[in-house]
Order: sequence, then structure tokens, then C-alpha cells
Amino acid sequence: MAFETFLSFDNPLFGNFAFYSGLVIGKTLLMSVLTARQRLTRKIFVNPEDVAYCGGKAPTIGDQGVERVRRCHQNDIENVFPFVFLGFFYILTSPDPWWATLLFRVFALSRCLHTVCYLASIPQPSRFLTFMTGYVVTGYMAVAVIRAGRF
Amino acid sequence: MAFETFLSFDNPLFGNFAFYSGLVIGKTLLMSVLTARQRLTRKIFVNPEDVAYCGGKAPTIGDQGVERVRRCHQNDIENVFPFVFLGFFYILTSPDPWWATLLFRVFALSRCLHTVCYLASIPQPSRFLTFMTGYVVTGYMAVAVIRAGRF
Amino acid sequence: MAFETFLSFDNPLFGNFAFYSGLVIGKTLLMSVLTARQRLTRKIFVNPEDVAYCGGKAPTIGDQGVERVRRCHQNDIENVFPFVFLGFFYILTSPDPWWATLLFRVFALSRCLHTVCYLASIPQPSRFLTFMTGYVVTGYMAVAVIRAGRF
Repeated sequence: MAFETFLSFDNPLFGNFAFYSGLVIGKTLLMSVLTARQRLTRKIFVNPEDVAYCGGKAPTIGDQGVERVRRCHQNDIENVFPFVFLGFFYILTSPDPWWATLLFRVFALSRCLHTVCYLASIPQPSRFLTFMTGYVVTGYMAVAVIRAGRF
Repeated sequence: MAFETFLSFDNPLFGNFAFYSGLVIGKTLLMSVLTARQRLTRKIFVNPEDVAYCGGKAPTIGDQGVERVRRCHQNDIENVFPFVFLGFFYILTSPDPWWATLLFRVFALSRCLHTVCYLASIPQPSRFLTFMTGYVVTGYMAVAVIRAGRF
Repeated sequence: MAFETFLSFDNPLFGNFAFYSGLVIGKTLLMSVLTARQRLTRKIFVNPEDVAYCGGKAPTIGDQGVERVRRCHQNDIENVFPFVFLGFFYILTSPDPWWATLLFRVFALSRCLHTVCYLASIPQPSRFLTFMTGYVVTGYMAVAVIRAGRF
């Protein structure tokens, strides 16, 4: 059994995977704070009990300042979570550590840039390209895991 | 320690779990492409910068062609991700490999059929039955994991 | 290699993690049933094929009875899933078992109370406090994982 096939911080590749997974999951978690900040500064709440406590006129749905942050959060859920799932399987397929680490770094960087592009409304195709970069990494890992698996 | 309790591709049960997890996560990832195709062919975008790049009149919310794909995607997130989480724990409970593999196959098949039923608007209760099949598998695994765990 | 660094039910800390993860994932899964109950009793459906089978006038979006349960479900997805991801890495960082088990218990309790506060529309800041408790636990684990990882 090769050293790369262990889920342990004694395995350098697992340490890399943990670092970049912690980073992108932490980034995803931060979206909750950004959404809350938007809601509080714009006084946009969807629950009557939130309006009662924080002020604002009435429950409001569809404010663009709030919804942009929420769409960015949802995009993280749709892409970051599959990356972490597939990463657990992928490092057990004994990939080349240099190549696998490169994939983890490219993914983490692409997701951070995606958030910047989304929240700053940077003109397309910048957001599309950052999305696709992460998507190709995750798709590649999905194929590698399926090929290493058993029908 | 029984052989089934290892997270390794040397363990055939883990190989099965990896294959079917990769399959259903890959299927979930494909929903992003289907949503993009709907948006591009129907010219339905929610961000002004997307309209500026791809055309279309104004940001639009609630188009049924787009929203159906997005609901299907969300249903995958709500059901596929719990399955993969619970599967990692479940294979460590030393289940009978034949039975566990059957569960993984039934789940993967039910989720693929669920997507077909949803996207093709096949009359109910077909979509409901495919949903319930996967839900029962995941619920069974949740109970098995809780029972094997420590309070 | 310390005993706490194994992903196995022979490791008591892993057993604790499995128990509380199974609990919060199971709780998240139950939200689907609660949403379905709301839809069926209020006759609020979004797909034409659901209306055709279950009755109701026309596909309806934005019913507050349904949407409250769905927001609660989405909040679980945004917080429970990151907790389980990070927990897998965290128990491999060889944390003090007493402290780690306390974190798992506090998280599971805070998420159950969050659901009660949300569904019963209990006045704020109760829901906010339950949310923050779980969020701080997950954030703490994210920092611990990133620090244990390799750049």
C-alpha cells in the first residue's frame, strides 16, 4: 500500500488536501457573514421575527444586493462541496503528489477569484472562466475516482 | 479489524462506494451545464453583467425552463451529499458487502431516474417514487451510523 | 501515530463524530419530509405535474409556510455539511478527545435548537444565537484544519 493512500496528516498530500479544503470551506462559510451584512445594512429580511428585531418595513424577497451574495454562496455549495467529496476519494487513488497538489491549488485559487468576480460584478467572461477552471478540476477528479472504483 | 473497515481502494466495498459516489456527484455537477444551456438558449440571466455579455433584455427571475433544472439540482444537493457523507461512515460499520453494494447501486439508479423524471416532466407519482427510494436508502444508512456511533 | 488519528469505529472519538454527524445529517434529511407535509396540507406545488396529481389550483411560488421550512433546510445545508467535512479532517489533527467531543455535542445541540427557533418563529435573537453557536464551532474547526495542513 503506497504512502499516498493514507488519510492522515503524516501523508504530505493529505496535508495539502486538508489545507486547501479548509480554505475553500472557510471561504464558503464566510458568505453567511456577507449575506448577514447585506441584510443588516439594507434592512432586507425575509422573516417577520427578523423585521421585528432589526427594523425594516416588511419582509422582502428578491433584493439584488442580498441575492447576489446568496447566488455566490449557492455556487460555492454546488462546486466546493463536490470538490471536497471527490478529493477524499481522489487522494486514495495514489495520484502523483505534485500533480494532485497542483489541482488542489488551482481549484482553491479559481474559487477565490470566482467570488471576487461575482461580488464585484466584474464583466464577463471573467466569472465564467474562474467557474470553468474549478469545474474542470472537479470533473477530472470525478472521472479519476469513477475509473479507480468498482462497478 | 475487519477488512471492510478500511477506507482504501484495496477494499472492494470502498471501490464500489467510490464508483457510485463519483457517479452521483458527477451527475449533480452536470446539472450546472444543463442550467447554463437553459440560460443561454432562452436568454434568461439574473446578473446584469451576464446580460451585457450574452444578450437578452433584462435580468429575469423565475423562468420555468431554468427553474426546473435548478430545482432538480437543489434536490441532488439535498440528497446526494448526505448519501456520500453517510456512506463514508457506513462502510466503516463493517456492513455485509453484498448488502451495502446493493444499497449503493439502488441509490445511484434511483437518483438517475429521479433526474429523468424531473427534467422530462413525467407524470407523478414516478418522480416521488424515485425520490423515496433514494431517501429510504440514505435514511437507513443514517440509522445504521447513529447506532454504530457513541453518544 | 496516535490512536485518535484513525478513521475507525474502534476509535472512540470517531464513534462520537459518527453519532453526532449522523444525527445532524438525519435532521437535515427530515426537512424534506416537513417541506412535503407543508406542500401537501397547503396544496402549494411548483411543478405542473405535481398539481395534476395532488390537486391545488396552479403552480405557486413563494408561499410563506413552505418557504420558511425551505430556508431552514438551506441553512442546514450551508452549515451542517461544512461541519461534517471539517470534522473528518479535524479528528485526524489529534485533538483532545474530551474537547473535540464537546464541540461535536455543542454543534449538534445548537443545530437542533436552530431548527426549533426557525420553524416555531421564536422571536430573535434566539435563532441568531443558535446559529452563531454552531458557526463558531465550525469556524474553529476550519482554522484548526488549515493550521494542521500544508500550504
